[in-house]
Amino acid sequence: MKIEGKEYRTIWFKNNTVKIIDQTKLPHQFIIKDLKTVKDSINAIKTMEVRGAPLIGATAAYGLVLSIIENNDQSFLKKSAEELINSRPTAINLKWAVDRMMKKLSGVNSDKILEIALNEAKEICEEDVKFCESIGLNGLEIIEEIYNKKKDTVNILTHCNAGWLATINWGTATSPIYHANKKGIPVHIWVDETRPRNQGANLTSYELNEENIPNTIIADNTGGILMQRGEVDMCIVGTDRTLATGDVCNKIGTYLKALAAKDNNVPFYVALPSSTIDWNIKNYKEIPIEERSSEELSHMEGLDENGKVKKMQIYPKKSKSMNLAFDVTPAKYVTGLITEKGICEASEKGLRNLFK
Amino acid sequence: MKIEGKEYRTIWFKNNTVKIIDQTKLPHQFIIKDLKTVKDSINAIKTMEVRGAPLIGATAAYGLVLSIIENNDQSFLKKSAEELINSRPTAINLKWAVDRMMKKLSGVNSDKILEIALNEAKEICEEDVKFCESIGLNGLEIIEEIYNKKKDTVNILTHCNAGWLATINWGTATSPIYHANKKGIPVHIWVDETRPRNQGANLTSYELNEENIPNTIIADNTGGILMQRGEVDMCIVGTDRTLATGDVCNKIGTYLKALAAKDNNVPFYVALPSSTIDWNIKNYKEIPIEERSSEELSHMEGLDENGKVKKMQIYPKKSKSMNLAFDVTPAKYVTGLITEKGICEASEKGLRNLFK
Repeated sequence: MKIEGKEYRTIWFKNNTVKIIDQTKLPHQFIIKDLKTVKDSINAIKTMEVRGAPLIGATAAYGLVLSIIENNDQSFLKKSAEELINSRPTAINLKWAVDRMMKKLSGVNSDKILEIALNEAKEICEEDVKFCESIGLNGLEIIEEIYNKKKDTVNILTHCNAGWLATINWGTATSPIYHANKKGIPVHIWVDETRPRNQGANLTSYELNEENIPNTIIADNTGGILMQRGEVDMCIVGTDRTLATGDVCNKIGTYLKALAAKDNNVPFYVALPSSTIDWNIKNYKEIPIEERSSEELSHMEGLDENGKVKKMQIYPKKSKSMNLAFDVTPAKYVTGLITEKGICEASEKGLRNLFK
Repeated sequence: MKIEGKEYRTIWFKNNTVKIIDQTKLPHQFIIKDLKTVKDSINAIKTMEVRGAPLIGATAAYGLVLSIIENNDQSFLKKSAEELINSRPTAINLKWAVDRMMKKLSGVNSDKILEIALNEAKEICEEDVKFCESIGLNGLEIIEEIYNKKKDTVNILTHCNAGWLATINWGTATSPIYHANKKGIPVHIWVDETRPRNQGANLTSYELNEENIPNTIIADNTGGILMQRGEVDMCIVGTDRTLATGDVCNKIGTYLKALAAKDNNVPFYVALPSSTIDWNIKNYKEIPIEERSSEELSHMEGLDENGKVKKMQIYPKKSKSMNLAFDVTPAKYVTGLITEKGICEASEKGLRNLFK
């Protein structure tokens, strides 16, 4: 998608280097960063220079390519795979991508392994783009249906960034929005700021601006009253791990919006490629929920009066803070799952119907 | 209550001047500000140097005292009263306090009017302190009951600041907490940051720190998962306007926490002095909900690396934002109302039983 009028993807490979957009610098600076080693990849995932379940998966896949360039010994590769899987706990795509790569690479001859790894990493990216495009076309039908009834701008609320910046292109939650916009359906997006890291404001609003899609940032507290007032026609969010039961683990605060949507009869959709489905865990309480540094809450970055990027402490010095990164929205609050294969009920039956 | 070990109230009168703690400067600076004219009072309310429904009421009452000092003509007083009522739309105490003052003052002889006004403003403050203390003792019973069952630290979630800084002393939502602490019941407070103005972090956590009450700031998004995990024993919040129906208008985001509390069987209490009850409006959709400057969202104040207070722009330059200050929690999500006269059901019947 576009940044300042130019088409980008979030990750690409050139001259033995993985190129990423450093998302910790957005929206104030647009910086393309080089990853040259597997350690660079792990660091990019940990510090959230790349984030979003599908993009984390792709970065891990390319991380293994970089690992092979450094040292094409199988034992080094195995160690790299383990370290990549452990770099962040909640998004399931990370493990999915590493497992997929390792299945292709284990026992492969050292003179062929780099080519095979590179092809597979590229294939993971291409597949993600295709899947996100299909999610967009499937989700578009829901937006179209609302528009055909309402004959006026469709107001969509989203939380965090499940935009193209969270994937390779198109995004998951944003893909139906981009497709609606392409088709000339008027949409307006309520963007949850998404504290503590403000990915809604910093990334979702930023990428929607760059595609000229009308959007308004709101505090995470605001969605409830907007729904009470009938100013939200639907919600679409992404997911970091979707259980076969239909329970959805996504950015902290998603659950609260789902409750408000239920209370006000607003449809609440979750958009996902099948790579974020966890077929193993049956009870959402078993999902490892990442706890991140409390400094992500107590400090904030912005532009000072001279337009310089500055970090400030915003909380009282004596205060403690706690930073859980995800929560779980039980399936009963999810109207439907928008996948690359179609829309289904948020349930094992629904998912098994699409993915045998 | 205490700041740096010294007892304060939020507002007092000395040498024909109203003294307030400038709450826009907290937590980074503690500044006592002088209000010398009715315009100063209106400005303090509008810019939220004073905020919180009971404190706004008291500031308006003292505003009329300052108005009389400036010009004790009845027509000037009437104009001042109108301007004070219009300074903020949502909190009902503002109108309540001004109406109460004007009832005492209309037609009073100019040589006696200042003394009567001053006495009535002081009486409004003393009454608020007494009411908040009673709210504390009534709410204490709920905390005690939980403690007697649990025999371990009682975890209480609160939203925004309904602390002593929102009243004259004790606070509404915090008064049961301060009373529990005094009685030796171990409590720990989850403090919702409360975007966009961060009154939870800046004021509630600050005042709890100063009273040595353990507390942890969380993003507004976090309460849901904490309740899912059983880490919240009860919620207590304040209110800016409580309808006779039991519907509660309070800081934006309160409604989302009430939904999560309901979904997880966590008791959700609202603490209020009777001055915040609106006996007239029957449908919560008629409550005027204040929309404040979008800059409260897009900019933030904090301490830079040199410990200097700085304001930064945190959102993308091209982004719009929208800032509604309150929402409404329907009565069905409120476990009970903690008032100065006792605890009642959030309903007309409940309220009428206590306040004939």
